[in-house]
Amino acid sequence: MRVIVEVMPKEGILDPQGKAVMQALHQLGYDEVNGVRVGKRIVLDVNETDAATAIKRAEEMADTLLANENVEGFKVHVAEEIA
Amino acid sequence: MRVIVEVMPKEGILDPQGKAVMQALHQLGYDEVNGVRVGKRIVLDVNETDAATAIKRAEEMADTLLANENVEGFKVHVAEEIA
Repeated sequence: MRVIVEVMPKEGILDPQGKAVMQALHQLGYDEVNGVRVGKRIVLDVNETDAATAIKRAEEMADTLLANENVEGFKVHVAEEIA
Repeated sequence: MRVIVEVMPKEGILDPQGKAVMQALHQLGYDEVNGVRVGKRIVLDVNETDAATAIKRAEEMADTLLANENVEGFKVHVAEEIA
């Protein structure tokens, strides 16, 4: 089973990487961009057939290792298809 | 409008960050994990009301700046809700 963990900087937390990307986009002429946040997308392939268990375990992994709870939030979902 | 750009290492391309995360997860006892790939999730807020235009522009941004086409692929979609 494939599980996706999305880790994003929390709202209100400074995101220097997002700010740098926004400045670069403006320099390229993409003036319609008025906000950028950059996070991580982590794709886990797990030997687990039960989706609820896979999600629970991935949430533990995010709590323990993948996200920094002080500055990041995360969401976990099962991939709809292997791709 | 909010547009999400997901940038992932291409299949078959070495992903050292993913490998490091998998090793760390194994050390923590998450032995069910047999593959990890780590990419970026970029959230763009844009002054654009037409979804097709917003997606086309974001694909240009990904081609130009956000993804390295040699080693990364990307997908763009409009966020279903502001959250």
